[in-house]
Amino acid sequence: MPEYLPTAPYRGTRDFLPAEMSVRTQVFGHLYDVVERFGYQRYDGPILESAEIYEAKSGQEIADQQLYTLTDRGGRRLALRPEMTPSVARMIAGNAGSLQFPVRWYSHPNCHRYERPQRGRVREHWQLNVDIFGSDAASCEIEIFEVIHALMGEFGATRDMYAVRANDRTLLASALTDLAGVPAEHLAAVYSLVDRWEKYDRDKLAADAEEIGLSDKQFARLAETLGMGTALLDELPAEVKDASNLVQVLRSEAAELVQFDPLIVRGLAYYTGTVFEVFDTSPENNRALFGGGRYSDLAGLFTAKEIPGIGFGMGDVTLIDFLTTHGLLPSPRSEYDVAVIPVTADLTGAARSVATRLRSAGLRTSSPLEHRKLGKELTRADKAGARAVVIVGQEDWDAGNVTVRSLATREQTTVALDAAADSVAALL
Amino acid sequence: MPEYLPTAPYRGTRDFLPAEMSVRTQVFGHLYDVVERFGYQRYDGPILESAEIYEAKSGQEIADQQLYTLTDRGGRRLALRPEMTPSVARMIAGNAGSLQFPVRWYSHPNCHRYERPQRGRVREHWQLNVDIFGSDAASCEIEIFEVIHALMGEFGATRDMYAVRANDRTLLASALTDLAGVPAEHLAAVYSLVDRWEKYDRDKLAADAEEIGLSDKQFARLAETLGMGTALLDELPAEVKDASNLVQVLRSEAAELVQFDPLIVRGLAYYTGTVFEVFDTSPENNRALFGGGRYSDLAGLFTAKEIPGIGFGMGDVTLIDFLTTHGLLPSPRSEYDVAVIPVTADLTGAARSVATRLRSAGLRTSSPLEHRKLGKELTRADKAGARAVVIVGQEDWDAGNVTVRSLATREQTTVALDAAADSVAALL
Repeated sequence: MPEYLPTAPYRGTRDFLPAEMSVRTQVFGHLYDVVERFGYQRYDGPILESAEIYEAKSGQEIADQQLYTLTDRGGRRLALRPEMTPSVARMIAGNAGSLQFPVRWYSHPNCHRYERPQRGRVREHWQLNVDIFGSDAASCEIEIFEVIHALMGEFGATRDMYAVRANDRTLLASALTDLAGVPAEHLAAVYSLVDRWEKYDRDKLAADAEEIGLSDKQFARLAETLGMGTALLDELPAEVKDASNLVQVLRSEAAELVQFDPLIVRGLAYYTGTVFEVFDTSPENNRALFGGGRYSDLAGLFTAKEIPGIGFGMGDVTLIDFLTTHGLLPSPRSEYDVAVIPVTADLTGAARSVATRLRSAGLRTSSPLEHRKLGKELTRADKAGARAVVIVGQEDWDAGNVTVRSLATREQTTVALDAAADSVAALL
Repeated sequence: MPEYLPTAPYRGTRDFLPAEMSVRTQVFGHLYDVVERFGYQRYDGPILESAEIYEAKSGQEIADQQLYTLTDRGGRRLALRPEMTPSVARMIAGNAGSLQFPVRWYSHPNCHRYERPQRGRVREHWQLNVDIFGSDAASCEIEIFEVIHALMGEFGATRDMYAVRANDRTLLASALTDLAGVPAEHLAAVYSLVDRWEKYDRDKLAADAEEIGLSDKQFARLAETLGMGTALLDELPAEVKDASNLVQVLRSEAAELVQFDPLIVRGLAYYTGTVFEVFDTSPENNRALFGGGRYSDLAGLFTAKEIPGIGFGMGDVTLIDFLTTHGLLPSPRSEYDVAVIPVTADLTGAARSVATRLRSAGLRTSSPLEHRKLGKELTRADKAGARAVVIVGQEDWDAGNVTVRSLATREQTTVALDAAADSVAALL
């Protein structure tokens, strides 16, 4: 017996069979529709990038443990992109001279990370990237929050199903140093501790704080500060707040778009101001769905020009989990709208010409590849989710007619060939 | 001075800035529309596959010289897919029990091959894959040829701009053995020679034939046979022709879809019957655009089940070259349809609410992120290709109105807020 190769996809990656692909295509299409209604322009870049652009900026976890790297036959060290930001920074830097800033760009790359596959984590995922480059105005924050709500709303999500929580790293830095008294040299490590604040219990946090070098007293003061929640904002110095884009948003009529949350940090190194995360509020799926933030100097690796920006990345796995949890996932489309069925094999060519007419009218039209009995073809069309069939019989055909049958009502009518497309369209 | 990383993409790959991406999106969208009108279902698979599936089937050139391979942190040998056929074979084999054959599937993967970049060849390209699996009927060939003409026609290509040339490997095998007297052991090598027939001069072909092991006399007879062109068909044994799908097509009313050409072979190892190529007929770009063929046993690596099929792969680079040569490439879309411009900074929130209304009506709507003079914003909107702007001034706003201005005619009218979307839509 011969040995066959396994048919499962590579661990942590996914095959998309037509039904799953139809759902994915609809979900992705909604994303594109929404961001394009906000005037965002789509771009794309290669999957393979020079490995060094990730080693420099994406943070140690990605570069050391998660990056897929390879060396090409010419000796170049390459990586499969784990995220889009370094690529878009490269593109923005390379084209900064000809771009009219601010620009609104979006992309939808598939990204690779070597991770242990688990719920919400795969090795290849699609990430919607939405960014504004070249403006540090608070209206960017407002628009990005509007885009997020529009994206969620496009799927039918209501405001009770998710929450947009935001912080500003400048506010957090002030809270940690001015209020909690964290020494400047521990700031980066304490960011990371804040990021874990809701996931760990108090003992584990205290142990981590000790490891960082905080005294018990410093940890207690940190816990007290973070425990203040929204009220923390009242305690911060006015000049820090006045300089914060997020505070400007919270003081505007757009305040309802977002909740201030001092525990939001975001892991990525390049954020410098506003940071935000969108949470699923359902008890079964209570976790961060996606997030983003503001960076003061996106393209610093590639150019001396300082280009600020703000944006987010939304992964397909968590989004689809969210939509599934809330019953918002679209159903797969039917395979086709209509099948054209010749009653005898002699009429195959006739059926083909009818199918061509229907396609010209924009109808998704199938016609059998092998001749089978009418009943079998009707069953097949029904299973495909078609709404109608056009039956081509000899007598009808000789008279310039065809029979249009509704698969929902099983009613059928004989119509002139010219009227077939309209007659089918009326059944969709 | 700091050193900056280069901003060019990896050699042989492409960045798609918004204008190029808009063209690409439209071109790809046309492809999907056409194949879906024929009832083809889209699927997708991972970019990373086990390296062995290419080493077994894709032919030596790909496996030895063109494959991008890597080993993951778990020691698995992987490759970036150089083509989609092995992936789809894996998926079809893995799901053969639940699929209702014949199935019509399409995909649009990006594929990687390590090649020297040159006109029409890049290292990362997008390839439309269109296949029928599970039928060996000649109606599959006819439909595939219809799809090809529909694809070309969708872009406005007329039948004089391209030619669909087809052969059948069973006919070629008969011509080579029965007519030209090529010994069976040289058949594979002679296929490859036929594939080069039109590219090389006679001396080079003769030298290659000698290397294969053909005598001068055998080569002369081969040249005579291939030189017969279409007339070759008349010389072939009836039983060979009767068994050929391509001959069935040529005998049917669908004969006009394709030209018989005994020199078409196709490089890939898995074709067993019909093979075809689509040629650009323009003198500047006279070459094969894309092609495909029939295979009797697609999924033999993965399953004992014999699954015949037929399909083709169409690369984006050659297609876009063709469209460019013939003046058929779509223009980039405008950045957005309409901009909403507040006359003063105080009206930014008002403008935002107007923009939300327009978006709800499906209009691609931009509103400024930073306040600038009206004239500057009008220029910006014009440059973005917008057809209209909505101007939000204090007096209008207090009266519940806005001003809608056509950027084409520069005419403007004051309309009630409720009527703004319709008024803008009328200008698109």
